[in-house]
Amino acid sequence: MAYHLYYWPSIQGRGEFVRLALEAAGAEYVDVARGEPAKGQGVPALLALLQDGDQRQPPFAPPILRHGKLLVAQTAAILQYLGPQLSLVGKSAAAKVWTHQIELTVTDMAAEVHDTHHPISTALYFEQQLAPAIDRARAFRTARLPKYLTWFETILQRNPANATGRQLHLVGARLSYVDLSLFQMVEGLRYAFPKAMRRQIRKYPLVAQLHREVQQHKRLAAYLSSDRRIAFNEDGLFRRYPQLDA
Amino acid sequence: MAYHLYYWPSIQGRGEFVRLALEAAGAEYVDVARGEPAKGQGVPALLALLQDGDQRQPPFAPPILRHGKLLVAQTAAILQYLGPQLSLVGKSAAAKVWTHQIELTVTDMAAEVHDTHHPISTALYFEQQLAPAIDRARAFRTARLPKYLTWFETILQRNPANATGRQLHLVGARLSYVDLSLFQMVEGLRYAFPKAMRRQIRKYPLVAQLHREVQQHKRLAAYLSSDRRIAFNEDGLFRRYPQLDA
Repeated sequence: MAYHLYYWPSIQGRGEFVRLALEAAGAEYVDVARGEPAKGQGVPALLALLQDGDQRQPPFAPPILRHGKLLVAQTAAILQYLGPQLSLVGKSAAAKVWTHQIELTVTDMAAEVHDTHHPISTALYFEQQLAPAIDRARAFRTARLPKYLTWFETILQRNPANATGRQLHLVGARLSYVDLSLFQMVEGLRYAFPKAMRRQIRKYPLVAQLHREVQQHKRLAAYLSSDRRIAFNEDGLFRRYPQLDA
Repeated sequence: MAYHLYYWPSIQGRGEFVRLALEAAGAEYVDVARGEPAKGQGVPALLALLQDGDQRQPPFAPPILRHGKLLVAQTAAILQYLGPQLSLVGKSAAAKVWTHQIELTVTDMAAEVHDTHHPISTALYFEQQLAPAIDRARAFRTARLPKYLTWFETILQRNPANATGRQLHLVGARLSYVDLSLFQMVEGLRYAFPKAMRRQIRKYPLVAQLHREVQQHKRLAAYLSSDRRIAFNEDGLFRRYPQLDA
């Protein structure tokens, strides 16, 4: 039974964390809003789901995963659901809750990245909130970004399975969805804050190594160089505005 | 085996969502940082956990739940862990994932409430970011608050179990942790934005009813009138700043 992902078709955004898991696992999925309206897909299908007055469990916002009768929204909840099915999470309950916990922190960080370009309101353009965006981005680059990266680095250092000298992982000895999410976070940060990241990433060699290793994952590399991977752009979560970088 | 909650002792904050679940269930728990340092508790115990260099799964931030050997951070992950143990979530997998999804949206909303008084940086005082706080609070009150409340109202309307005319619930026919969290959200919003909430809550009669009913839950009512319930204050998540309300 194929997974159906409902997310905006022209941005990576939060949906990309889900796409990466599906792609890395080689799962069969339909990226619904990127399909053709004539086939019942496209943005109209996404809007129809969001506006469905008969939906007993109405999702608050995309991304939304449909799998059979089940609908799941919220990126971290979707990944938690997919993890065991895609073999992208450890089997023990302790591994599952730790992986989810890290993912929820990636989620928090993503919201903070978003707010660097929209510190006041999502209903206003970036240019209408430029002054506070500059201030918030400075606080993010100088305080929050190092705090988060330090935490990820510490997790990689303390994961006993990483002592083997083989590939790094955040949890246990195998690739999990949160490794993919941290890859995406670093990739997005490098796009949005190239100057800050060039300087800062040197202090987090394990995070940088994990990013490189995930990038070389065979199925993921194929995805990243395919036209299924949407390019970063200034409508998404990670936006390159020179005023916000330094 | 008692639960140990690690959270700041002088605020409700995010920890309160966990306290409400433990209290409503009558669970045995230690609110560690509110205990005495002489007994190995108090803020030093919280700081020791945060700074423990041997911790293989270091939590990013409080609240943190310790239960035996397991540590869980992130409010929504803690509640997801506690739910089945405290009989505060439905038994089916579908009920569990839906309850968690709603909780994650409460979490997102809580972050937005926080950012009304700290739109630029948590390292600056409110007074140092007053102008953007006024703008962000206006956007929150006029756009985000109604959007979230509308969603909760819709969930309550569409929950088939609410057609019986008995007590309302977000999921199924019994109290779940997310009912407690929505109660806390409404309570906090009424504290932080008394004018806006007095006007807006009328449009969400089911949300208002759920808030009232949860408040009358026997064990919860006892907790709310006890000295274990910390009063709202201007160090917490919900802060009453007249400049931000209208």
